[in-house]
Amino acid sequence: MTIYLDKTQPITARVEDLLAKMTLAEKCGQLNQRMYGWDAFSRDGDVFQITDNFKQEVARFEGIGALYGLFRADPWSKMNKETGISRVNSAKVANMVQRYVVENTRLGIPVLLAEEVPHGHQALDSESYPVNLARAASFHPELQQQVAEAIAEEISDKGVHLALASALDILRDPRWGRAEECYGEDPYLAAELTAAITEGFQKNGKIAVILKHFAAQGEPVGGHNSGPVSIGVRELREIFLEPLRAGIAKGALGVMAAYNEIDGVPCHANKELLTTILREEMGFEGIVMADGCALDRLLKLNPDPKKAAKMAIEAGVDLSLWDDVFPFLEESVTAGVLNESVVDQAVRRILQVKFQLGLFENPYVKEVVSAPSTNWKKLNLQAAREGICLLKNEANTLPLKGKQKKLAIVGPNADALYNQLGDYTAPQNQADCVTVLEGLKSIVPKEWELIYEKGSEIREKVTDGILKAEELAEEADAIVLVLGGSSARNFNMEFLSNGAVSSKGPNMDAGENVDVADIALPEVQLELFRAMKRTNKPVIVVMIQGRPIAIPEISKEADALLTAWYPGSVGGTAVAEVLVGKYNPSGKLPVSIPVSSGQIPVYYNQKAVEYKEDYFDLTGKPLYPFGYGLSYSSFKYHDLVINQEHVALSALLAGEKVDVTVTVENTSEVAGEEVVQLYIHDMESSITRRKKELKAFKKIRIEPKEKVEVTLELDKTTFEVWSINNKYEMETGGIQIFVGGSSDTTLVGQVTIVGG
Amino acid sequence: MTIYLDKTQPITARVEDLLAKMTLAEKCGQLNQRMYGWDAFSRDGDVFQITDNFKQEVARFEGIGALYGLFRADPWSKMNKETGISRVNSAKVANMVQRYVVENTRLGIPVLLAEEVPHGHQALDSESYPVNLARAASFHPELQQQVAEAIAEEISDKGVHLALASALDILRDPRWGRAEECYGEDPYLAAELTAAITEGFQKNGKIAVILKHFAAQGEPVGGHNSGPVSIGVRELREIFLEPLRAGIAKGALGVMAAYNEIDGVPCHANKELLTTILREEMGFEGIVMADGCALDRLLKLNPDPKKAAKMAIEAGVDLSLWDDVFPFLEESVTAGVLNESVVDQAVRRILQVKFQLGLFENPYVKEVVSAPSTNWKKLNLQAAREGICLLKNEANTLPLKGKQKKLAIVGPNADALYNQLGDYTAPQNQADCVTVLEGLKSIVPKEWELIYEKGSEIREKVTDGILKAEELAEEADAIVLVLGGSSARNFNMEFLSNGAVSSKGPNMDAGENVDVADIALPEVQLELFRAMKRTNKPVIVVMIQGRPIAIPEISKEADALLTAWYPGSVGGTAVAEVLVGKYNPSGKLPVSIPVSSGQIPVYYNQKAVEYKEDYFDLTGKPLYPFGYGLSYSSFKYHDLVINQEHVALSALLAGEKVDVTVTVENTSEVAGEEVVQLYIHDMESSITRRKKELKAFKKIRIEPKEKVEVTLELDKTTFEVWSINNKYEMETGGIQIFVGGSSDTTLVGQVTIVGG
Repeated sequence: MTIYLDKTQPITARVEDLLAKMTLAEKCGQLNQRMYGWDAFSRDGDVFQITDNFKQEVARFEGIGALYGLFRADPWSKMNKETGISRVNSAKVANMVQRYVVENTRLGIPVLLAEEVPHGHQALDSESYPVNLARAASFHPELQQQVAEAIAEEISDKGVHLALASALDILRDPRWGRAEECYGEDPYLAAELTAAITEGFQKNGKIAVILKHFAAQGEPVGGHNSGPVSIGVRELREIFLEPLRAGIAKGALGVMAAYNEIDGVPCHANKELLTTILREEMGFEGIVMADGCALDRLLKLNPDPKKAAKMAIEAGVDLSLWDDVFPFLEESVTAGVLNESVVDQAVRRILQVKFQLGLFENPYVKEVVSAPSTNWKKLNLQAAREGICLLKNEANTLPLKGKQKKLAIVGPNADALYNQLGDYTAPQNQADCVTVLEGLKSIVPKEWELIYEKGSEIREKVTDGILKAEELAEEADAIVLVLGGSSARNFNMEFLSNGAVSSKGPNMDAGENVDVADIALPEVQLELFRAMKRTNKPVIVVMIQGRPIAIPEISKEADALLTAWYPGSVGGTAVAEVLVGKYNPSGKLPVSIPVSSGQIPVYYNQKAVEYKEDYFDLTGKPLYPFGYGLSYSSFKYHDLVINQEHVALSALLAGEKVDVTVTVENTSEVAGEEVVQLYIHDMESSITRRKKELKAFKKIRIEPKEKVEVTLELDKTTFEVWSINNKYEMETGGIQIFVGGSSDTTLVGQVTIVGG
Repeated sequence: MTIYLDKTQPITARVEDLLAKMTLAEKCGQLNQRMYGWDAFSRDGDVFQITDNFKQEVARFEGIGALYGLFRADPWSKMNKETGISRVNSAKVANMVQRYVVENTRLGIPVLLAEEVPHGHQALDSESYPVNLARAASFHPELQQQVAEAIAEEISDKGVHLALASALDILRDPRWGRAEECYGEDPYLAAELTAAITEGFQKNGKIAVILKHFAAQGEPVGGHNSGPVSIGVRELREIFLEPLRAGIAKGALGVMAAYNEIDGVPCHANKELLTTILREEMGFEGIVMADGCALDRLLKLNPDPKKAAKMAIEAGVDLSLWDDVFPFLEESVTAGVLNESVVDQAVRRILQVKFQLGLFENPYVKEVVSAPSTNWKKLNLQAAREGICLLKNEANTLPLKGKQKKLAIVGPNADALYNQLGDYTAPQNQADCVTVLEGLKSIVPKEWELIYEKGSEIREKVTDGILKAEELAEEADAIVLVLGGSSARNFNMEFLSNGAVSSKGPNMDAGENVDVADIALPEVQLELFRAMKRTNKPVIVVMIQGRPIAIPEISKEADALLTAWYPGSVGGTAVAEVLVGKYNPSGKLPVSIPVSSGQIPVYYNQKAVEYKEDYFDLTGKPLYPFGYGLSYSSFKYHDLVINQEHVALSALLAGEKVDVTVTVENTSEVAGEEVVQLYIHDMESSITRRKKELKAFKKIRIEPKEKVEVTLELDKTTFEVWSINNKYEMETGGIQIFVGGSSDTTLVGQVTIVGG
């Protein structure tokens, strides 16, 4: 039996056997992901066919490495219920595509199907979960792992192999339109979540996760999407590399390079990043995928596409995406510009993943797709619940109570499904989805009355909207005002060749390529808020948002305030449950909320060096800090105990742990969940350290009046810094340890690392 | 004769001889600049005496390396006409101090007197020139060299040796309060000016310039004064190192380290910066001075002052300033923490400068200080004139003309002397100074009438101020509205131990430690502007400012607009001359003016990589770009000729030049000056390049209807980049060459660097 077809052989042997049989063109074909997946099929009713386009693409290099977005449905792809692939048709179409590739190429190498899953599969009839920023607010990696497992189950049934998942971007500039895709501003939190979803996505063995983006995309100069990043290597390591390191530790099989440059070197041409750090240092063995059309951007450095292709593949890019550069790989080799061994290396990695996922044994999936699991919707709802952060609750305005209550539901985000879903969203089945208005309708006591008025759009007035809303609110006992932003695309918008938005939607003020200079809530919404306040009724503000929005006035004047971020397709149920007290909120801010754009950045982990913190005209502090979030319970922290006053550096190196124990007491009459957070401040170091750094957290449930003792373990990895010697080292000296329910906690102890 | 006292001996021999004779304590004394100079003397009428404080300080280490601020007069030092040292007493007091040191120490090593000269000597009876930001707007290095020569003449007569001159900070974040101290946002412009002032200061051989601050202080995270800088090494080199490199090429004898850290390493503990780059790479042989109390900040890294001292001196700091760390040097050596040879090295550098300045031969100065040169005032006025940038002149509103004109002069900066001087300013002799109101009074035709009303303070209302101003303006033919900011300290304010402001003044909204979150013009001034507009009279806005202030509304609505920055003590004359057309403005913006804080940064030399440039809610472009500035003349650029289409890399290395010639035509009837600017865009490189980079400029005068052919020379240094190989290299490929009167010029040619 041919070695590469023999599944009893080790994968490396199969890879080498197959590679040896391949022509240069076939090899280059494996590094090729040029097509938009929706161009690969045509549809007539329920009859699907392979397009000539796709046939030509397969013929061009005798095979195809991967196909992006076969199932993608959205305004950019123009795929919707009429034109796209429904859930029931998905496996059938995947098999059709796969079969064409296997049966019409010399070596029959299966194609990898790559799909976007930033918050669920961006395809028809698919579960749409809260965005990363909301999921990070849960501080609950186990839950997020379950969500990833659910998505993996959903997409692997459809025949998908590569799951493109946002995870690595750290939100350092809230002007950036892709803020929603980040697990917040903190590297440790993002790393824990990246580890969790990596495990979740890859658990069933059928999916390779492509973690994106690598690296530092969250700190572009000026907050401009895919803008240059000017940070140095230490900042890069301290803030941006940790999530991927955590993902690799869990076996992540793929990573996507980031659009941006770092200090003059585009990530796609950055050998230090994609090879030295990623593979040699971190031990990554999977594939590096280019971002969409990103390789074309290298032509600005090197106008010859053969040389640009060489630049990218030598740096460490294995698989292209839509660009016109990697198609020149073959020519690059034949012209003597590029050594074929470099191509071989990339091909090995692609083939290895194909073998690892069992594609040669099982290229096809079961064509009858099973019904969606009821568990998915449950997980979706739970993720939405745990993402809600209660920021203010004056005089226990919430939860809403009372026998006969008349509630005014107002605001542009109260009943706008797509506004609560985020960017990268497919057309939804409305019956499966719940807005805040719908959620409240289905949950409030029968005797309550709900009245609704939109009031305004996100950034535009509605004729007489504010007036009507004010009149309506005058009649109510309380007002639920649902404000915020939106990343909702619509089918009239225009897009770039990489799918980013190039025109302005009437209300889309966030999402890819939608950066803002002013992060303040738009004036029209502030006017609506002021109108509500004029009624002297309690005003409960619910924010639906994809980035931190500066709301100093609302923070001061609202009776209660919570944010649900973009809470997903059943987010309305989650918000309603919190409002009526059916769910006790437990979310913590994964990002600091600034008072204004002029303060940017206000992340909590600033350097603890002497500088002028406050501005002449404004505090230097955020409106709400990282880690902050209220509950209907009240928690008190006491009895912080660190199990050793001094710990030897050598002992830590040998695996010794430092145990930090604290008692958390629920002093209220309501059971609730609390995220116990541990921060350190390194007081002595060869390099400057931060005021606080999150190093551990645990989400716990505490019954009324119960006291729970929580122990958090610290080890070597807690204390390592990228030292003045440019390596990860522990250094002797005192470490302050802060524990509490927010980054601004002051409960502190100390451990000292000593020599020897 | 003792070798070190023998001036016929080479300096190195003298240094070694003296060093060999010194005790460890004496050595440490030479590295010591602990005292505030104003504590060294007491004054009773015209009788000055050495204080016990100073005697103890001299005794402590048997000598003293340098004394800072003997002449400093300002609210912080509490030195004024009553308490401080007047010009006529200055040499006498300097000699008294010097004599005490020479005569009361074993080896009689003279002390260096160090003084602040950011825009003239910060002392009584001294010329106060425009701040750096204004002087940069001249694009006229020769003029600035003359200013530096004048200051050097003034201070060396007083017995000063070290001139602390702001030069190295590049203005990358306009929120920063020390914006005024920068030569703008561009490294090339700043480098040319640094070279010029270095030559100017050191020309008479009696002064060592201390260029500050090294490095990167102008790009603190969040714009916070002395805040952390997170940029990488390439950004550091491209933007921040060039000015010092240029200063060193002109023989700069000193540099002051910057407060900030760069990517985790404080400049004061940064061996890579202060030794590897500064000395080994750039060839610097002078002294590195610490910034005030900066070494104390190292205690945050290393709480033991012996170790902090070791950290700093090993990194490359030679001379302290006010800190409690370098006094531990001796103990650090005796405790075996620090090797004495490291101390020796620093002492050598201090002694070398003392020998170079001839202090051992001539420790004293002539006690009768000659009268101020009339040339100083002329230069001051010329610097103010050339710093004025005309930004808008709708329908030739300016220059003001007409037979019988009634002018309303309004605004908080119209007649506020200290508001036009900047931070680091001594009490002035009012009779020598001219505000805009005074300047206009003395210059307008006799038949014109001037009426004045303040209208408002910088950030506070004046009771009925706007009302009164509006009534007044109603009677006028035109309104000159003088707005802006202020760095004026007053004697009621509080200060930190390093002299930075720690309390808020009523109007001081700029200067050291006065950063703003919102760079917009304060609302009260906008209201005043709107009141002026309501009169329907022409409104000419004059900005007096120390940082870019966002004025989109004024830019749109004013009839004419100019900025004079902080134009110095006779700035009012310069502004008046421009307003009446006695001087034709020629200044060009040394920094881009943003539309709002949300846009920051908007410097012109952004990376030419693909990214989303415009925000959803605002343009990504500045209100006015770098290099922009109008004249009463009109200039037309044509016939751009580059003398070679291709140039060999090897030829450039061998010294070949590329000549770029352009014809500049004055199409108007008015003679004027124009700054011809040349920018390049490097189209092929191993690393990303910027959209445009200033590489040459020339200020020329053109008569009416005259055409002038201007040739600008480019060479190796024009084309070198800090390449992917981490060294300065030229690379082959096309270079676009833009020439014009602003950074947004589109007149373009090309030269291609070819191999071989």
